[in-house]
Amino acid sequence: MTNSEKALALHKEWNGKLNTTSKCQVNSREDLAIAYTPGVAEPCKAIVANKEEAYTYTIKSNTVAVVSDGSAVLGLGNIGAEAAMPVMEGKAVLFKEFGGVNAFPICLDTQDTEEIIRTVVNIAPAFGGINLEDISAPRCFEIESRLQELLDIPVFHDDQHGTAIVVLSGIINALKVTGKIKEECRIVVNGAGSAGIAISKLLLRYGFQHVTLCDKVGILNKNTPDLNWMQKEMMNVTNLEGKSGTLADALVGADIFIGVSAPNIVTSEMVSSMNKDSILFAMANPVPEIMPDVAKKAGAKVVGTGRSDFPNQVNNVVAFPGIFKGALEGRASQITEEMKLAAALALASLVPEDKLNENNILPEAFDPQVANVVSAAVKAHIHD
Amino acid sequence: MTNSEKALALHKEWNGKLNTTSKCQVNSREDLAIAYTPGVAEPCKAIVANKEEAYTYTIKSNTVAVVSDGSAVLGLGNIGAEAAMPVMEGKAVLFKEFGGVNAFPICLDTQDTEEIIRTVVNIAPAFGGINLEDISAPRCFEIESRLQELLDIPVFHDDQHGTAIVVLSGIINALKVTGKIKEECRIVVNGAGSAGIAISKLLLRYGFQHVTLCDKVGILNKNTPDLNWMQKEMMNVTNLEGKSGTLADALVGADIFIGVSAPNIVTSEMVSSMNKDSILFAMANPVPEIMPDVAKKAGAKVVGTGRSDFPNQVNNVVAFPGIFKGALEGRASQITEEMKLAAALALASLVPEDKLNENNILPEAFDPQVANVVSAAVKAHIHD
Repeated sequence: MTNSEKALALHKEWNGKLNTTSKCQVNSREDLAIAYTPGVAEPCKAIVANKEEAYTYTIKSNTVAVVSDGSAVLGLGNIGAEAAMPVMEGKAVLFKEFGGVNAFPICLDTQDTEEIIRTVVNIAPAFGGINLEDISAPRCFEIESRLQELLDIPVFHDDQHGTAIVVLSGIINALKVTGKIKEECRIVVNGAGSAGIAISKLLLRYGFQHVTLCDKVGILNKNTPDLNWMQKEMMNVTNLEGKSGTLADALVGADIFIGVSAPNIVTSEMVSSMNKDSILFAMANPVPEIMPDVAKKAGAKVVGTGRSDFPNQVNNVVAFPGIFKGALEGRASQITEEMKLAAALALASLVPEDKLNENNILPEAFDPQVANVVSAAVKAHIHD
Repeated sequence: MTNSEKALALHKEWNGKLNTTSKCQVNSREDLAIAYTPGVAEPCKAIVANKEEAYTYTIKSNTVAVVSDGSAVLGLGNIGAEAAMPVMEGKAVLFKEFGGVNAFPICLDTQDTEEIIRTVVNIAPAFGGINLEDISAPRCFEIESRLQELLDIPVFHDDQHGTAIVVLSGIINALKVTGKIKEECRIVVNGAGSAGIAISKLLLRYGFQHVTLCDKVGILNKNTPDLNWMQKEMMNVTNLEGKSGTLADALVGADIFIGVSAPNIVTSEMVSSMNKDSILFAMANPVPEIMPDVAKKAGAKVVGTGRSDFPNQVNNVVAFPGIFKGALEGRASQITEEMKLAAALALASLVPEDKLNENNILPEAFDPQVANVVSAAVKAHIHD
């Protein structure tokens, strides 16, 4: 049986990857009278008197909605709500298993921005946070920022910020390994969708000065036709020299390549044209922009991918469970830039100096410390 | 500590009555690669190819949304979405504990009929059924029927139909105890909201001929001012003699009183004016329309209430878990009148003839057979 066949067979056996289970017993009339009528009226009245008590008496305190419209699922594209469910259920499983956070998949039978916003606002009372997932750019930017304005609970598009946080944590450690200095590094981000843009923003926020965004058309600059509104905004902070050309042109003299794009589009020659001890995060899945051994042979010092069978796997699972755990425990009303930077630094710190090397820049997903350390870092910055 | 204090303290300790838990292990990279990327792509692709496969690979097969707008919660009235959460969580607990059905509370931050309908349609992909709860009349009628038209999964307003099914089951057995004949019985239903109307409809469907609806204004007839559209519809099938007057007037010569109304509004004198061996279901909570001992002394033969500390508790928990269990297992697209009647008959049959008496007309909520028997009855009528 191939892994694909095994995955399909197990999903059939599971028949859904989540259960809802009760925290309270209902084995007698007395139990019923406490957990349901008439006893349940008491917490209801307490919440009527003070809405904040929802965090004391309901699941809101520790429950996240995993919301998708199925428009940009994994490498599968726009597959719609029903077909997105296995991914969102999987995400909900990871929230619980890695962060102890309850999560429930909300897959939306609409891809209209206004409808999505209204629907999520309408169902928000049950939830302490909203994790947006696999919603296509540029709609995802507006959906996230509008929802965050309308709601007093954290709204977090993991494809953007989870990825950005883990990438930044890896880059922080890669700088240590290579001795590169952030202010001097030239970074090329290939793929100007939700992940590429969020990564670029967080890198700039961290203090990098030179970021260039590329896409299928090559280097993006102010004159590139058909940029969406977010890409246009990014032209105010990236590629300040106004370069144009191909991805190959962009990589000449670059220190860092970050790919959230397509398989096999970076060649040995391109890597050779980069600065010494270059850093490559080739995160296209399952086939990266360049295979690690090829990149290394061409002069790269540190190579990360999205795959678990190579060193330096860039995996969001080290970020989002701890981030929401911290935000929920600290009752954050949003996930700020400070919290994201703190999470990235905390993740980077999980690789001890004596174990840090070119093949070990990121924490291990199954390290039980991870969610707690990230959570603590996030909580420490809630009131910044 | 009073029961109310105990209920509040326990709800605080629980801090939400539901958990989401994983059916699959994620203890290793291999586990992750099956339950999440890349393995999860396989069930996604299977659902893209055939949407029906959502029932094979996702929680849709066994998950119900418990949807409320908090507009008519228990005896508390219009308390809104957050304050309704403890009730909806409790309902979700009962779905699981009594029927083995996963359920998740969706409390809506809107009371606009169109918004509610749109929101529920938008989130439906994750769910195999929609249980509407504590939505005020007459909006609940439109919301239910429009949703059922729009969705291909069962939509069931439990305050209406769950109550109606349990009442009918109790009445079926009360007829046996009293020897009354349905075609000849005169029934007075007091309370012309969602429950009262649904009870009246199901009793008529079962074969009763004479049902009179009363409300605060007294007997409802075609000339009663300010009837809502559903009450107007009911005037075509109830009170065909066009009676008018008070509740007391309605009860003269009646055989059955069904109260879903207010405490202490039925007097001894009213019961005495009813036919011999009268049947009273006085379901106002926590204080019934008349106390059982008072009703008995005045001549009633069978008295049911909503309370667990008196005989003959009318409790929806014997109905909804089994109904959804059956509907989900049988992949019903709606809960039909035939299924409701079958559920009521099945419930009535759970009280064996030799144990049937005036103080034992309804099955015990904690009888482990209940959900299975109801489920089987419902499944048998899916393709009627």
